[in-house]
Amino acid sequence: MTKILLDLLGERNVAAVLITSLPDIRWACGFSGSNGVLVVVPGQVHLITDGRYREQARNEVRGATVHTPGYALFGYAAQEGLLGDARRVLFQADHVTVAQLDDWRTLWPGVEWLPCTGLLTLHVASKTPDEVDRLRRAQAVTDSVFERILGWIRPGLREQEVAAEIVYQHLQRGASGMSFDPIVASGPRGALPHARPTNKRLAAGELVVLDFGCVVDGYASDMTRTVALGEPGDEARKVYDVVLNAQQQALEQARAGMKTTALDHVARAVIEEAGYGDFFSHSLGHGIGLQTHEWPRVSYHVDEVLPEGVAVTIEPGIYLPGRFGVRIEDVVVLRGDGCDNLTGSPKTLVVL
Amino acid sequence: MTKILLDLLGERNVAAVLITSLPDIRWACGFSGSNGVLVVVPGQVHLITDGRYREQARNEVRGATVHTPGYALFGYAAQEGLLGDARRVLFQADHVTVAQLDDWRTLWPGVEWLPCTGLLTLHVASKTPDEVDRLRRAQAVTDSVFERILGWIRPGLREQEVAAEIVYQHLQRGASGMSFDPIVASGPRGALPHARPTNKRLAAGELVVLDFGCVVDGYASDMTRTVALGEPGDEARKVYDVVLNAQQQALEQARAGMKTTALDHVARAVIEEAGYGDFFSHSLGHGIGLQTHEWPRVSYHVDEVLPEGVAVTIEPGIYLPGRFGVRIEDVVVLRGDGCDNLTGSPKTLVVL
Repeated sequence: MTKILLDLLGERNVAAVLITSLPDIRWACGFSGSNGVLVVVPGQVHLITDGRYREQARNEVRGATVHTPGYALFGYAAQEGLLGDARRVLFQADHVTVAQLDDWRTLWPGVEWLPCTGLLTLHVASKTPDEVDRLRRAQAVTDSVFERILGWIRPGLREQEVAAEIVYQHLQRGASGMSFDPIVASGPRGALPHARPTNKRLAAGELVVLDFGCVVDGYASDMTRTVALGEPGDEARKVYDVVLNAQQQALEQARAGMKTTALDHVARAVIEEAGYGDFFSHSLGHGIGLQTHEWPRVSYHVDEVLPEGVAVTIEPGIYLPGRFGVRIEDVVVLRGDGCDNLTGSPKTLVVL
Repeated sequence: MTKILLDLLGERNVAAVLITSLPDIRWACGFSGSNGVLVVVPGQVHLITDGRYREQARNEVRGATVHTPGYALFGYAAQEGLLGDARRVLFQADHVTVAQLDDWRTLWPGVEWLPCTGLLTLHVASKTPDEVDRLRRAQAVTDSVFERILGWIRPGLREQEVAAEIVYQHLQRGASGMSFDPIVASGPRGALPHARPTNKRLAAGELVVLDFGCVVDGYASDMTRTVALGEPGDEARKVYDVVLNAQQQALEQARAGMKTTALDHVARAVIEEAGYGDFFSHSLGHGIGLQTHEWPRVSYHVDEVLPEGVAVTIEPGIYLPGRFGVRIEDVVVLRGDGCDNLTGSPKTLVVL
């Protein structure tokens, strides 16, 4: 991927580029540490990180020369003259603090600093076959955990216990970590889209919203299923069917080249027609990859064209305050003629 | 704590302050969401976050007026005139991107933006009795998990399985999450200070470095213990004793008013005298609180005065490449006459 970085020099008419977004650095050269910068100059890409990552950087990095100084990264870059005599240098204005830029001005007097935003957004969004494979493997772990949870979850368990079990089962299956803290929201708590697990016990007859995902080889999974602990009642069944139908319509119509607003509208229209439009209070989905949430938002108020190969979640929901909530979420990769669904877990209402 | 923010207006001779560091926001008003800003103007502190956090902000925030617009936070602040006619506005240059400042210049033309760094560092570092209580409760969970792990860990388990069990036991005990991914580094892998758990199986006779912590009520725990799976051999015992002695010397001498370099030196001198100076490759410790790593670094190359009430880790280590590593870590709170050790787990070499 570092070829794309080298091409930026000509495209942007600059003598050097600094890449400071850690997910972008990982995407470009494979380095997964928590401290680093890529210095792109004609014919060469340098990764600079600190001494803690000496061995790791040597193992992970492709397409860049690794430097692991025992002191400040930018001080090292300046002292070693890695920018050469560059006078126009492009940087990621959305991933550099005001204090950092101030330091750079001191380290490299005379350089003209050219801010840009969204520099690699489209490149990062469009997944390669290898990236899709990693997303698929992360999702397969999550599917396997869901199957296990279905055979185990029961009234009387606390939400926190269920969350602990979800984390444990992922780590046991080789996930390097969770992509976010699991949501286990039972009964009325299901009406809070971002509920944290509490010590509330699951009760018979409740719906339970389960939203979780993990990280495998750096890539994230993300899935939501809503299950019923015994017969949930007529309106819960109806709401479940509306959400499922909304999701299925969106899955059928999703394709590369479509606008985010148009895709969001497909699901939202189904929910609005059923009379629940006021209770679908968030966007339809979000990009996913090295980060759990990345560009684009699939939203009714953000108008972007969905590129070929982008991975996004499709997750409509209906939340009835004080009563219950339903959300169903898959991860898909968009193609010109439709989408590949990476999520394998069943979606008919499971009544346990 | 918002009184401290209001006092900044006079101290810094400005008409308003924007606080954009999320840990600082949580420290100042209790808000724990992932998106927000504090706007400080004479007589009033505003917290602005987004609609997702409406209920949470209402429950958590103390000492600030809560705003939860359905759109961009700063656009809202400008439209509602929350800065009044302020002309000199202080901001956290180390917690604002270049792109963000550019947006502000557009939203508030005519404002003079005054950068500062480390604005709340000393305030955040000095823990109140309530904060110390939270740190203590987080550490108590970690101590309890370690006791459980001691009765369970054995040769044949994979490092990843041990890490999964450590996470599971913390969540079962009510931790809201881990403060970092656990380190379980056995045998030669213990010589890598930041090793990630692998599928390597623990073997009889190995030392195992266990480094883990959790979050309770927002505050982090962090502890390292090194255990032996059967008789570890003479040099391992000797190295263990050197590290333990280095830590005990540091614990005995640690107090508020001391310099970070001086405290680091206490432990480092013990290790150097024993002939292992080249194998203690990191700093002695770091501040801890709402963040697992916060100011100050207790390091031989950062010279700061340790304030009354600061919570820091004391974690010397010796790492013999290709052979084994030993690290022992406690969390302490510094007082004028010594330190309170929040960590209760035993430190004599446990041979299992």
